[in-house]
Amino acid sequence: MGKGAIVTAHPLAGGQRCRQVALPGRALPQPIRIAPPNIPPAPSSSLLFSSGSLASRCYPSIRSIPIPLSRSAPLRPLAAAALVPRRVGAARRAISRRRVGALLLLLQNSKCSNLSLKSTSKRQKKSYVTCASAAVQGQKQTPLTGSQEVSGHSSSKPKKVMVIGGDGYCGWATALHLSNKGYEVAIVDNLVRRLFDHQLGLDSLTPITSIQNRVRRWKSLTGKTIQLFIGDICDFDFLSEAFKSFEPDAAVHFGEQRSAPYSMIDRSRAVYTQHNNVIGTLNVLFAIKEYSEECHLVKLGTMGEYGTPNIDIEEGFITITHNGRTDTLPYPKQASSFYHLSKVHDSHNIAFTCKAWGIRATDLNQGVVYGVRTDETAMHEELSNRFDYDGVFGTALNRFCVQAVVGHPLTVYGKGGQTRGYLDIRDTVQCVELAIANPAKPGEFRVFNQFTEQFSVNDLAKLVTAAGAKLGLDVQTKSVPNPRVEAEEHYYNAKHTKLIELGLEPHLLSDSLLDSLLNFAVQYKDRVDTAQIMPSVSWKKMGAKPRTVSV
Amino acid sequence: MGKGAIVTAHPLAGGQRCRQVALPGRALPQPIRIAPPNIPPAPSSSLLFSSGSLASRCYPSIRSIPIPLSRSAPLRPLAAAALVPRRVGAARRAISRRRVGALLLLLQNSKCSNLSLKSTSKRQKKSYVTCASAAVQGQKQTPLTGSQEVSGHSSSKPKKVMVIGGDGYCGWATALHLSNKGYEVAIVDNLVRRLFDHQLGLDSLTPITSIQNRVRRWKSLTGKTIQLFIGDICDFDFLSEAFKSFEPDAAVHFGEQRSAPYSMIDRSRAVYTQHNNVIGTLNVLFAIKEYSEECHLVKLGTMGEYGTPNIDIEEGFITITHNGRTDTLPYPKQASSFYHLSKVHDSHNIAFTCKAWGIRATDLNQGVVYGVRTDETAMHEELSNRFDYDGVFGTALNRFCVQAVVGHPLTVYGKGGQTRGYLDIRDTVQCVELAIANPAKPGEFRVFNQFTEQFSVNDLAKLVTAAGAKLGLDVQTKSVPNPRVEAEEHYYNAKHTKLIELGLEPHLLSDSLLDSLLNFAVQYKDRVDTAQIMPSVSWKKMGAKPRTVSV
Repeated sequence: MGKGAIVTAHPLAGGQRCRQVALPGRALPQPIRIAPPNIPPAPSSSLLFSSGSLASRCYPSIRSIPIPLSRSAPLRPLAAAALVPRRVGAARRAISRRRVGALLLLLQNSKCSNLSLKSTSKRQKKSYVTCASAAVQGQKQTPLTGSQEVSGHSSSKPKKVMVIGGDGYCGWATALHLSNKGYEVAIVDNLVRRLFDHQLGLDSLTPITSIQNRVRRWKSLTGKTIQLFIGDICDFDFLSEAFKSFEPDAAVHFGEQRSAPYSMIDRSRAVYTQHNNVIGTLNVLFAIKEYSEECHLVKLGTMGEYGTPNIDIEEGFITITHNGRTDTLPYPKQASSFYHLSKVHDSHNIAFTCKAWGIRATDLNQGVVYGVRTDETAMHEELSNRFDYDGVFGTALNRFCVQAVVGHPLTVYGKGGQTRGYLDIRDTVQCVELAIANPAKPGEFRVFNQFTEQFSVNDLAKLVTAAGAKLGLDVQTKSVPNPRVEAEEHYYNAKHTKLIELGLEPHLLSDSLLDSLLNFAVQYKDRVDTAQIMPSVSWKKMGAKPRTVSV
Repeated sequence: MGKGAIVTAHPLAGGQRCRQVALPGRALPQPIRIAPPNIPPAPSSSLLFSSGSLASRCYPSIRSIPIPLSRSAPLRPLAAAALVPRRVGAARRAISRRRVGALLLLLQNSKCSNLSLKSTSKRQKKSYVTCASAAVQGQKQTPLTGSQEVSGHSSSKPKKVMVIGGDGYCGWATALHLSNKGYEVAIVDNLVRRLFDHQLGLDSLTPITSIQNRVRRWKSLTGKTIQLFIGDICDFDFLSEAFKSFEPDAAVHFGEQRSAPYSMIDRSRAVYTQHNNVIGTLNVLFAIKEYSEECHLVKLGTMGEYGTPNIDIEEGFITITHNGRTDTLPYPKQASSFYHLSKVHDSHNIAFTCKAWGIRATDLNQGVVYGVRTDETAMHEELSNRFDYDGVFGTALNRFCVQAVVGHPLTVYGKGGQTRGYLDIRDTVQCVELAIANPAKPGEFRVFNQFTEQFSVNDLAKLVTAAGAKLGLDVQTKSVPNPRVEAEEHYYNAKHTKLIELGLEPHLLSDSLLDSLLNFAVQYKDRVDTAQIMPSVSWKKMGAKPRTVSV
């Protein structure tokens, strides 16, 4: 193992190791040297990752090991500064003593560092956690824009939004969108989604660069700072320090294992998914109660919590008249994977804390997201979002577009009558902003169904086939045995009016959008690995024993 | 730390240590020496506890340390034999290598040992887990009784029932009842409930002896063997070996942290409760799928999953007509503590596995249990059940009876209009047997509401006051600020017909029963610690920081 690599072993890899910095196909970051006034630079570059997390205690093979990055090492994305202890050995011991999961990325230019150090000076004695921000010397923060008008936020101080899971598919697009709209944004992420790709041998269709490069590029293009907290929200010490340091007005929580097939690979992934998602969310709730009581939780749920009942799906609650009496109760949940179930558990936990503690929360039951470009991610290739087309993380329409351009038949599972709500990723970011700008009241547990249109899988296949034909593609469709346990023909009518009422202007799935999605897939056609496309996870056949991936 | 003590540190104690064997006030067990044919006795007595469990990985301060019990040690409950490696050091290394959480209690007499060794000989190479049974040489298993008639189990082989959490309040009474009815019973328990008492400074009103003494006494009185697997079901390796060894026809799952106040003490207890309960139940589901596909899961839920809706509470499902369409859906859940929520999560997970994997399951949504004596626990003082009256684990009626006899005002929380379902512990054991004898079909997720009568807290206070007067007690009632967040006046009408239809013959809370409960409290009056009575946990004030108990 060469110097400068960050070595991370993961639960699901049985001790497999991978380089976290040297992602293949990514542009290597440029080192930035920092010497803030009055604080001598660290003698060696370091990345300190969250340690002692609940997850890592629970899954002892998850380990985040701080390794010194030699000045001469070829991979040196970050220069350590200020709060990083001079000697990594000492840091290790200190962290071990405190059991504080800590990161620090110190990318600030001296001006930014000054601010950061000033604002966090009280925390220094308690923790190694601070923020990192991409910076280009001399650039100033641009004036605030629309968000404050929408939100009625009248002071000159921007609203602070913590985006948990801000390195993921929806999280990254959201973080940029909110930053662009004038919110002060911090990303909290443990980057484990990137590790899943390594372990399962998957890759995004689009080349994506490191989160550090991403926020640095964003700063260089817009002058806007996105703070970065790298760590695991299952580690409450880490999360506490992030909350105390950033003091969010709103926390958008995407930070969960979000794939149904992933949660159905084997027992260890099922347990990981439920532990990670449920305990992570509990920790966020406790952090809000303890440190930011007014903070509005915007939690990403899923339309899959409802299942496919034979009655209309309402937004979170349903009024029931039964034996002559009436009450409005939580809409019954019928989730169909350990992942979807984890979101059901979250919803119940959040609803309780709103009632018991007065937490203000919005549960966004999101449909299937498609698309990849937003106004912000389109600004530079280093801002590109990930685009998953594989059988584990790929969502239906995205996967179909990739299949169409590489001549792979569209894989319809079973009869293809499975109907769900869908939305463009540009609407995901819009919805989250609307929720933040119009926060829930203290004690309110609010549920919005976040999608814009309903399609069956067969509908999608037909749309892609027709759009492909216009581009000269001969698109075939193949029914494959359904790896899931789900109704393949069913009634489905889900309400989704609350976000429209708040001002959502949907991007509907028109022909032109579909064309652009297909053209996008054409652009990256050469990166497609067709071995990733077919479903490899069976709901019925999943077992208790760890499943490894054959190469 | 003297020889012979079992040292266990626990998460919630911050490294606090306690003696697990030498429980104060318990009769010391007698050593039993065993030398099965062809297998030399171990040179030193040993207890090997489950190690490497998920919980212990998650909460690293939970450690179960095998410590040799010297032959000369004053506390020597168990003599090791057969499968215990000769040297404990070697055993430690072997366990460490295999990451198998294992225990072995070997209490068999030679005849029983032969059987056990024969039946488990194939497992020996794989694991250190085997069964333990209390035995008195020369005694034979008594003939099977009613259960097989009820169940229509026509073969001569008794049904095997694994009672997870069989050392607890409901679990112990159930294990004895099922054993008495002719079922072959194994108890699986990590004994952590006893540890909670140590950590919180609580104690059962009744003196209870060790689980080892309990099963030995049961054997000596009835000739019936109860096997014993000591370990943590969050440790899947341990649970797997228990399933493979015992091959249950039914698994009754009481093995959860079952106190609402305990789950509301602080963040770490909330997280512990949800992790322990949800992951433990997931593991049970995976063990059934992997090793005992036909095994019927009988899971203890709680009436608290439903909350207090303004409409009638049905048994698990409700038929809803909405916008002209009709479906029968899971009854909406509104739990009001992290404990109750954990049971909601379990119910959703179990329902999913019934659908996806064909698991057969009965969810018993139990009301508040009162009473302590059953036919079986009354047979000998060493079979006594625990009786909790404290503010954390004590249930309402039991606590009121203790308060009445010590002259402490009955503590009614708030207005006292909180209405719940109640049942006698003799009905708990009857209900579980009925569920086992009439199993769910493969793929069926069945929900029974398990209680016999509804009372408000004020109703209970009046009943206890009146019954106390007959015994010459002047019982006062005091309203104390409600530590919980709950409706104090509300509609409540919950159905509970399904168990009646299966043959439940309820023990209703008559005056005479209440008298006997009070007399029971009088019998143990001198053991009451009045400092335990008042509520000490506040739903609203709970915090993120670990809360320690003041002495």
